[in-house]
Amino acid sequence: MGRKVLWRAIAGTLSEEIAAGQYHPGDRLPTEADLAARFGVNRHTVRQALADLVQRGIVRTRRGAGTFVASKPTDYPLSRRTRFHQNVLASGRSPSRRFTRSETRAADPREAEALALEPGALVHVVEGISLIDGQPVAVFRSVFPAGPLPGLCEEIAARQSVTLALAACGVADYTRSATRITARIARGTLALALELAEGAPLLRSDAVNVDGAGQPVEYGRTWFAGDRITLTLAPDS
Amino acid sequence: MGRKVLWRAIAGTLSEEIAAGQYHPGDRLPTEADLAARFGVNRHTVRQALADLVQRGIVRTRRGAGTFVASKPTDYPLSRRTRFHQNVLASGRSPSRRFTRSETRAADPREAEALALEPGALVHVVEGISLIDGQPVAVFRSVFPAGPLPGLCEEIAARQSVTLALAACGVADYTRSATRITARIARGTLALALELAEGAPLLRSDAVNVDGAGQPVEYGRTWFAGDRITLTLAPDS
Repeated sequence: MGRKVLWRAIAGTLSEEIAAGQYHPGDRLPTEADLAARFGVNRHTVRQALADLVQRGIVRTRRGAGTFVASKPTDYPLSRRTRFHQNVLASGRSPSRRFTRSETRAADPREAEALALEPGALVHVVEGISLIDGQPVAVFRSVFPAGPLPGLCEEIAARQSVTLALAACGVADYTRSATRITARIARGTLALALELAEGAPLLRSDAVNVDGAGQPVEYGRTWFAGDRITLTLAPDS
Repeated sequence: MGRKVLWRAIAGTLSEEIAAGQYHPGDRLPTEADLAARFGVNRHTVRQALADLVQRGIVRTRRGAGTFVASKPTDYPLSRRTRFHQNVLASGRSPSRRFTRSETRAADPREAEALALEPGALVHVVEGISLIDGQPVAVFRSVFPAGPLPGLCEEIAARQSVTLALAACGVADYTRSATRITARIARGTLALALELAEGAPLLRSDAVNVDGAGQPVEYGRTWFAGDRITLTLAPDS
């Protein structure tokens, strides 16, 4: 049997055992040495099988700790009032956000169009990571018109919440006007930030939020780890 | 400069030239030999740069014909009345479907749950490929309850349309009750059917369609080529 056939067969057996509930989310798999003994192969072949399961999002490796069955993806409802914090709480898990960067600069053409701004108008750009139960599930970049929201970056830094910071700047409510979803591959800094293998699948969403008067207040791009989030659309969302 | 740095730089230059409109969708890129001469590198390095652009969905290779700039993704609106044919016509392109397989068998547990059937009830399973302007953009698998729709497979074969076949079986209209979207990686038969490189990103949608009485009539799973389709949600979809 060729080596590729061999590790594929081992990956298949392990993924079936996981699907059948023989191992539960969060369980540690046997060590590479134990798996090598069980299947009568060398550790290199076991490692290829595990790498395949990692790539398919079925298991995760934690450096020095071993290989663990991945948690089931969290359902993330897309609706006119999509809020990360509420969405995650509603799924019975614990949300958090880590803001990693903010700057104020001229809008690029795509941002200006999304926010209905003159080309080159100033925008605040805020980037960060969204976590569920401490595990990174998404990287986001939010772009806000700087003109009507001069103190927004400071408010976000102080409140660690976009919703609260917008409220402090006078935007009491906002709703989503349109969402675009596509699939991408995790590479470089995105893969690192999400603790994913290079080549793992991502859901990328582009959305514009508007205030009560229909004025765009936020253009957000989010990269979700495809194995950790399922975007859901309710019938009347 | 390391080889990786080198091919990344070449891939970056080419993708910028494509983004700037120097090459248009459908244009053929210069040959590997010409690109090797232009950048002063060997063809192996050029091939790595092109493989990177293929994986990112920026170019496509056609065996024996060369490397071509990929078409812009088609917007595909998700709504209560999502229909492939109408969606594609609305974007000014030409839709077609190729049905590749149909069978009648017992529902698996996931299918039975989605269609609100008793475990093991019979279902019709129809698989095929959706094309836009002759290019495959999605692979689909539709599962229908066999009990209320005994002649459906024959109708689909005859009419080459799920909507028309359902109408012929007495389901005059249907709407979408829920959609779940996640990201996956193209491998094996999926990659082949979609003419994608192994490892390319896919959008996978799961949807249930119900008839006028709210009864599930179709459980569909679709794998869209991430570089060819952008799923869009209108504000009130």
